[in-house]
Amino acid sequence: MEQSLINELKNIVGEQHTLTDRESLAVYGYDSTPELESCPGAVLLPGCTDEIARIMRLCHGAGVSVTARGSGTNLSGGSISDNRGVVLQTSRLNRIIEVDEENLTATVEPGVITSVLHREVESRGLFYPPDPGSMNISTMGGNVAENSGGLRGLKYGVTADYVMGLETILADGDLLRTGGKVVKDVAGYSLSPLLVSSEGTLGIFSAITVKLIPKPQAKITMLAHFPVLQDAALAVSAIIAARVIPATLEFLDKVTIKCVEDYAHVGLPLDVDAVLLIEVDGHPAVIAEEAAAVEGICGKHRCSFFQTAQNADEALKLATARRTALSALARLKPTTILEDATVPRSCIAAMLQVIQASAKKYNVTIGTFGHAGDGNLHPTCLTDERDKDEIRRAHAAFEEIFDAAISMGGTITGEHGVGLAKKKYLPRLVGESGIRAMRGIKQAFDPKGILNPGKIF
Amino acid sequence: MEQSLINELKNIVGEQHTLTDRESLAVYGYDSTPELESCPGAVLLPGCTDEIARIMRLCHGAGVSVTARGSGTNLSGGSISDNRGVVLQTSRLNRIIEVDEENLTATVEPGVITSVLHREVESRGLFYPPDPGSMNISTMGGNVAENSGGLRGLKYGVTADYVMGLETILADGDLLRTGGKVVKDVAGYSLSPLLVSSEGTLGIFSAITVKLIPKPQAKITMLAHFPVLQDAALAVSAIIAARVIPATLEFLDKVTIKCVEDYAHVGLPLDVDAVLLIEVDGHPAVIAEEAAAVEGICGKHRCSFFQTAQNADEALKLATARRTALSALARLKPTTILEDATVPRSCIAAMLQVIQASAKKYNVTIGTFGHAGDGNLHPTCLTDERDKDEIRRAHAAFEEIFDAAISMGGTITGEHGVGLAKKKYLPRLVGESGIRAMRGIKQAFDPKGILNPGKIF
Repeated sequence: MEQSLINELKNIVGEQHTLTDRESLAVYGYDSTPELESCPGAVLLPGCTDEIARIMRLCHGAGVSVTARGSGTNLSGGSISDNRGVVLQTSRLNRIIEVDEENLTATVEPGVITSVLHREVESRGLFYPPDPGSMNISTMGGNVAENSGGLRGLKYGVTADYVMGLETILADGDLLRTGGKVVKDVAGYSLSPLLVSSEGTLGIFSAITVKLIPKPQAKITMLAHFPVLQDAALAVSAIIAARVIPATLEFLDKVTIKCVEDYAHVGLPLDVDAVLLIEVDGHPAVIAEEAAAVEGICGKHRCSFFQTAQNADEALKLATARRTALSALARLKPTTILEDATVPRSCIAAMLQVIQASAKKYNVTIGTFGHAGDGNLHPTCLTDERDKDEIRRAHAAFEEIFDAAISMGGTITGEHGVGLAKKKYLPRLVGESGIRAMRGIKQAFDPKGILNPGKIF
Repeated sequence: MEQSLINELKNIVGEQHTLTDRESLAVYGYDSTPELESCPGAVLLPGCTDEIARIMRLCHGAGVSVTARGSGTNLSGGSISDNRGVVLQTSRLNRIIEVDEENLTATVEPGVITSVLHREVESRGLFYPPDPGSMNISTMGGNVAENSGGLRGLKYGVTADYVMGLETILADGDLLRTGGKVVKDVAGYSLSPLLVSSEGTLGIFSAITVKLIPKPQAKITMLAHFPVLQDAALAVSAIIAARVIPATLEFLDKVTIKCVEDYAHVGLPLDVDAVLLIEVDGHPAVIAEEAAAVEGICGKHRCSFFQTAQNADEALKLATARRTALSALARLKPTTILEDATVPRSCIAAMLQVIQASAKKYNVTIGTFGHAGDGNLHPTCLTDERDKDEIRRAHAAFEEIFDAAISMGGTITGEHGVGLAKKKYLPRLVGESGIRAMRGIKQAFDPKGILNPGKIF
């Protein structure tokens, strides 16, 4: 990157917020995706909307790419910049601008940590449901750019279901305001939902208004042990078919259970094929009925043990089992490839069979956990990127898994995004007309292609 | 329209499904919007997806415009075709293709009547919440194209919140499949939400997959009389602030109450300024508490009478009061201009004051009813389009109302769309960057501009 451009960028954000030393550039060249890295030209930490706009105007003029980045928890390479591009790091933009209790909305800057927003609104009896696995470090900007899911998605939906308004800086530095605090708005094309999950390729969010809901009054946390994997999968379908929609309906397989128990010592059973973590929340009278229904269904599906948390500590311990799954698995081998193939929930049992068969066929270790109630599984390959042959086999297994997901009417990514890692699979899913429509939108928003280039397609 | 083109169109859909007689063309030149009409060149009633694709390919080649049309209930001129354009009438595409009880989805053709889908899924213990005022005649295709709201929007959201997958015929006749039965999908840009509310300008839906939810177990319907208008508005805000989210929270002002009572004789009070119709639904234990809270709040806000329906007949009678509001108002004068300015719900009281002041200032009769809990009011001007001066004054009043809505952080249309009627106001709301983004998207999808031309911008 030319020194004259770096000097102009320093003039915008200040010298102390412009990182160009070798160590910083190396650190910001990674995110949480294995096998991918880059070397950005500069890392900028703007402090306000106007600075983002000025950065974009300057980079637009110079034809330099800009990749927005929160905490870098992305799992598809979506926050890895171009070589010699600008990384726009949002950590200084971390203000909760407003919690509007009358309209049940919160407006935040993009660098606000997800769980910080949770705590703030919950202290007022309100609730922001999206809770991605990385919520203690992930940022709201990243959540919106990727349309993050989470453990409560089954009942409450994903980030897109809560974004009401966005303030977005476009490629040329112009400000675009979409939506707001109105709960109904059909004035022209729905741009906010398009910007959500656009992976930083259409604009950079400077303010985000999300919907809040009343905080559920109570919660019951349950854990069911299943000696046979398929029984757990069938229990998931049966719970939904019984018209019970738990807040959380999570699955852990044997590989994951063992890793979690070794890591967190929460008392998981080592002799079963799968466990389900189930949480129902809402009015006490309702959840008592729902919990009884869940216990009955698990029993009918040959669960060997059913545990209901008796207090908040026990509930937290059970939930921890699921929350630590990725960290626990990641300890086993140097490289963890975490995927998120997603199928209609009726196909969960079939999908689990495909995952097991592919792991066996290609002789790789895959632990599977995830949001079973959403049909959103996380087959996680434990490998070592220095072992080229094993990596090749891992990718072959995932290719089979993705193709199976597509053939079941599913998708290649339920919540991690396409980024760099899944570009290859997108055309198989959306077809030529889908790619053409997406490229047309990209061209309309960013004709010079400077916003997070190379992602999605 | 050239006879040779008409002959080719007849070859696609059949002679009996091609209307070119003067009477038909006149009938299909209107929708439910006053003051607007056109004369299409031909009306086509295709019977399957392939016929839609062939119509589009032919019209794309010939540069002839195509306007999709369901039941023509649109209130912003969105279903009025170009002069000499093709009207693609979806009434033959009226199959409920599938209700998938395991995945809680329904897939329908675009010509399915909204309330027909309601009845079908409710017979299976399931629920499709969007219930636009016109639900007994409106089609699902139109609901999706306009992102229709309804009376249950407060608790359950609008059409966009239920569309999971679309099969869309693009301008050139290509088929685009977006989404499906997966509840989480972040593979590339979110095209389904963009197509929802695109008012027929980006493509024509040939199949629609919507999310279903379990049918609420029970419902309590209530009616509260308020001698003072502002008290009703403040009660609305207080109910939401108390963390009670009714399924329905509807408002009728004095003008509307009188018209409804004259028309439907449901026993509404003629001596109060406003009534609120409130419905809470869900588990019996929960709604009993919610109903008690609502009654308490209405009492605190000086409601003079509070009625709780004692059985289904009484509930239906109360709901009818609101459902017949538009028909009742429409009887009073030859022309009814129904608008849908929408504000953050905290601004309902202020908005009602603006509407009353504007009606007085311009000496026009405006009855107001609507989805108070959503901040979505329907100020309805009762006028006569032959009285040019009164029409001019009516539009002046609405211009003031829209500007006030925008200044309160609201929108010019909560559920009716921009169409032809509100094009003038859109730039004030979304700004130059918003219009540019929307035009860019239109250009990407429909470079020849043949899909429902002239709408939105």
